[in-house]
Amino acid sequence: MPEPVNLAQKLSLFSEHWSPKIVAAYNGNDVIVVKVKGEFVWHSHPETDDFFLVLKGRLTIRMREGDVTLGPGELYVVPKGVEHCPVAEEETHLLLIEPAGTPNTGDPETAVVKEKI
Amino acid sequence: MPEPVNLAQKLSLFSEHWSPKIVAAYNGNDVIVVKVKGEFVWHSHPETDDFFLVLKGRLTIRMREGDVTLGPGELYVVPKGVEHCPVAEEETHLLLIEPAGTPNTGDPETAVVKEKI
Repeated sequence: MPEPVNLAQKLSLFSEHWSPKIVAAYNGNDVIVVKVKGEFVWHSHPETDDFFLVLKGRLTIRMREGDVTLGPGELYVVPKGVEHCPVAEEETHLLLIEPAGTPNTGDPETAVVKEKI
Repeated sequence: MPEPVNLAQKLSLFSEHWSPKIVAAYNGNDVIVVKVKGEFVWHSHPETDDFFLVLKGRLTIRMREGDVTLGPGELYVVPKGVEHCPVAEEETHLLLIEPAGTPNTGDPETAVVKEKI
């Protein structure tokens, strides 16, 4: 049986930014926590939507058609294929859901390996 | 483009229990908020895992192999096919993710129709 997951406890286990950690699995998707600060790279995922839920802090998702800014308890799903660039002025904690194996940069060449914690 | 979703704002729009509301879509899954209180029915989903994240309150998920109890910021994925019965002593607010069309009771005959809000 899976274990219950306490998101704050999982987030206490690491401090690095832009280093997604897998905390659970759902139908072939990774459920992920990540700490972010600063600007990521512009990218898109041609095969999948991209689910963001802000747990702490504030995240702006820049898109070509306009930006959205999310605070705690706010979520956004970037449709598949839509170019976006996440930006956080302060350290921000996110819950992400994405199909297992999705490269975080949209490109397997530059993607990080996601660790399970 | 989708709209950002503020979970607390969505939860303020209704008061009934066990009446799931769709707030976003992710790769053919419904992203849902629901208010629960009391005991649901024992059921299982043969085709899908069942994702629960507690936003407020406390949820016990009874299973034949043992119970788990979740507070705010805690999540659990009931594996597909596993019988479970959610119970909340106090009013509890949940974020759920499930494939669009999944019957909440595991049985289309008794399932509620999920409204988009």
